Amino acid sequence: MPGRKPGVTKAIPETSIPLDPGAIRRIIEKQEFDFRTASIREMNKLVNCIEAELGIRFLRMEFGIPGLPAPPIAIEAEVEALRRGEVAHVYSPFEGIPELKEEASRFVHLFLDLDVPPACCVPTVGAMQGCFASLAVASRRHPDRKTVLFLEPGFPVNKLQTRLLGLKTAQIDFYDHRAEKLIQAVETRAKKGDLCAVIWSSPNNPSWIVLKETELEGLGAICDRFDLLAIEDLAYFGMDTRQDYSIPGRPPFQPTVLRYTRRGICIISSSKIFSYAGQRIALSILSPGLLENDNHNLVERFGTSNTLHAFVHGVLYPNTACVPETPQYGLLALLKAANRGDRSLFRAGKEYARRAAIMKKLFLGNGFHLVYDNDLGEPLADGFYFTIAYPGFDLGVDLQLRLLHYGISAITLETAGSCRKEGLRACVSLVSDDQFPILEQRLQQFRQDHPR
Amino acid sequence: MPGRKPGVTKAIPETSIPLDPGAIRRIIEKQEFDFRTASIREMNKLVNCIEAELGIRFLRMEFGIPGLPAPPIAIEAEVEALRRGEVAHVYSPFEGIPELKEEASRFVHLFLDLDVPPACCVPTVGAMQGCFASLAVASRRHPDRKTVLFLEPGFPVNKLQTRLLGLKTAQIDFYDHRAEKLIQAVETRAKKGDLCAVIWSSPNNPSWIVLKETELEGLGAICDRFDLLAIEDLAYFGMDTRQDYSIPGRPPFQPTVLRYTRRGICIISSSKIFSYAGQRIALSILSPGLLENDNHNLVERFGTSNTLHAFVHGVLYPNTACVPETPQYGLLALLKAANRGDRSLFRAGKEYARRAAIMKKLFLGNGFHLVYDNDLGEPLADGFYFTIAYPGFDLGVDLQLRLLHYGISAITLETAGSCRKEGLRACVSLVSDDQFPILEQRLQQFRQDHPR
Repeated sequence: MPGRKPGVTKAIPETSIPLDPGAIRRIIEKQEFDFRTASIREMNKLVNCIEAELGIRFLRMEFGIPGLPAPPIAIEAEVEALRRGEVAHVYSPFEGIPELKEEASRFVHLFLDLDVPPACCVPTVGAMQGCFASLAVASRRHPDRKTVLFLEPGFPVNKLQTRLLGLKTAQIDFYDHRAEKLIQAVETRAKKGDLCAVIWSSPNNPSWIVLKETELEGLGAICDRFDLLAIEDLAYFGMDTRQDYSIPGRPPFQPTVLRYTRRGICIISSSKIFSYAGQRIALSILSPGLLENDNHNLVERFGTSNTLHAFVHGVLYPNTACVPETPQYGLLALLKAANRGDRSLFRAGKEYARRAAIMKKLFLGNGFHLVYDNDLGEPLADGFYFTIAYPGFDLGVDLQLRLLHYGISAITLETAGSCRKEGLRACVSLVSDDQFPILEQRLQQFRQDHPR
Repeated sequence: MPGRKPGVTKAIPETSIPLDPGAIRRIIEKQEFDFRTASIREMNKLVNCIEAELGIRFLRMEFGIPGLPAPPIAIEAEVEALRRGEVAHVYSPFEGIPELKEEASRFVHLFLDLDVPPACCVPTVGAMQGCFASLAVASRRHPDRKTVLFLEPGFPVNKLQTRLLGLKTAQIDFYDHRAEKLIQAVETRAKKGDLCAVIWSSPNNPSWIVLKETELEGLGAICDRFDLLAIEDLAYFGMDTRQDYSIPGRPPFQPTVLRYTRRGICIISSSKIFSYAGQRIALSILSPGLLENDNHNLVERFGTSNTLHAFVHGVLYPNTACVPETPQYGLLALLKAANRGDRSLFRAGKEYARRAAIMKKLFLGNGFHLVYDNDLGEPLADGFYFTIAYPGFDLGVDLQLRLLHYGISAITLETAGSCRKEGLRACVSLVSDDQFPILEQRLQQFRQDHPR
């Protein structure tokens, strides 16, 4: 795993860049997967192999994982809970420990400006399980609707979830659909009558566009009108650094579709905002409207007609019984700190933004351009990801392969569901300050070797 | 949650036993569920209400949760991992951390006397996720086989898993099927051609019978012959206290179907043996034969034809991404200790056996009898559960209701899938030594009020 054990201690001189094409080809050929359709994890494995075999440290931009340590406040809360001797041996309630649910409700009030009862704030084993449960419930709300509409690009693993659940998918891309055009396209698609849910990520992985309030309002209205479940992946909560979302109870508030629909589930990962990915704890915030939504189609698979009950007792219970208990105390401590105004908890977003500003400049200064290059006419925020392309490379996979020779790894936008074939997704989290000069040097070399 | 916050501080005098039927009736009527079909969790909630409203402490025998604290060795290993600062912020490998997989493989060698490579030892978010993933994979191995055969009684939540996955179920009961009769019944049922898997719990929840090697051999052979997945729930690993399974590398070894089939998944919970339920960590041990089992039916849902790969990358990855990391270090420490011969880790089984011996004697001495009353002619071990009935009560639910008036709670055997309608499952874990005299007194009172 990158960020854990780099594995590369000796560094080869930069004069070896570009790397020997024969050596790279041999390492690629040894893999069990096809390079041209490699997943993120497969790319990750390939780059590990190249680093180990050729003794070179890469600029690792392929993997969207936190690059900062977990906050001590969470660590110590877990330690305290473990040592108290009351929790590790008994099952936690399926719906989450009451204190966490109450603090989450307060967090939603202070940072989303919404009143959601604790019952609707449900911890899950990572945002992954929250999305899985949301899709599972969505897929049974109407017997004849088995298609999930993905607003693209997005988190690739959501597609593995629909595959696992036997669902179909449809796509609309933010690249050419924003504002009224987006709403119209979603509405037209909803009219076909086969959709059960719409899912998206905003701030968006990987384009870093952020849906505007008017867009969320339009999406929410469509979900209510066509009885679709809105599944909002807020993995990058508070990380649109053009705004300061870090002051509790004071605007601006994190935009969310929950403000505009009675049929939404907003999934708040603690992996990125709180650098807390390893302990697998997230929150699913269900629209209070779903509490009252009685749907007899749910009974067959979940034993209840109530959506919240189906989510908790029909999916989470037979899936993992409950969320491991001490991470719930860790997240509780983080939410408490954020709720009382400890802004240091939003430091990760700021740090990634700082790195992104530097790294984007290096790429753009060396002939690259952004694929998703604006946010409804405004400049994009600097954040966890940005998207890049280079003149003369019509296919992202070709650019991805060429960059490997320069010690730079990324994934194709196609991997992230984008309609744009030419680009790559670059993640800033694992590149450290001491690597910026090396990145610059390698990009200059790349530009020199690939004149326009 | 019982065992956590008893909630009852004042004790009413034992002269109030039996409790006021009107008060009990009113509390039952206030519940949102039907008492006659109540689940374990619903019974648990009801008893919490009665305890709180009437100010009486029950003998809590309805809930099968550990009643002992988690071992310090696990707690300290988690604390150490948390404070090391390397793990909480990064995702763990989907397939589990390498050290845990290696130690698990060693544990399987030393305590099951089987050689299973680390790749086949996969941690999951509790045994619940292990069963879920096993059933999910099993259900896609043959397109036209959607029925899971349950050897009953068993863990009730497995039925919620088949419901969630849209599978059908069939039942064969240990009560009237053991030895050759069991094998013949399973074979006859397998011949119908609609089974994808056979699932059972041994030592059995709740009858505490333990399948013999010849039975496991027969089951394994049927699974190989009909290409069924054997899903063995070893939640009560090492807890057949008639044998001493605690010495590494020395017989007797824990019986397991993995010895007899190339198509088995054995799920080892750490909740009971290690009193480690709250942190949700278990092991799924896959038959090495499944590594070589290439099945193209798996591709559609899991993206691979390999069963192990489908289990890890097709189910676990899109379900929870990975197992929370520090509990993996906790389990690693426990396995290491067990592997080097620290027998104290098996103390839970011994402690439950001690309590069961006392409690069974109290029940049997007061007119009760065991429903599942022998283990293929041998006496049952004393363990986590036993099964009880009382003359004149043809329905377990009636006995359950009557016992509530005596401050004793249990669940019906029907809840656990048993064909026996008259009995109850009693769990010993939450009854402490100071409660034995109270149990005795209440049972004597019950007997006096219910002469044969």
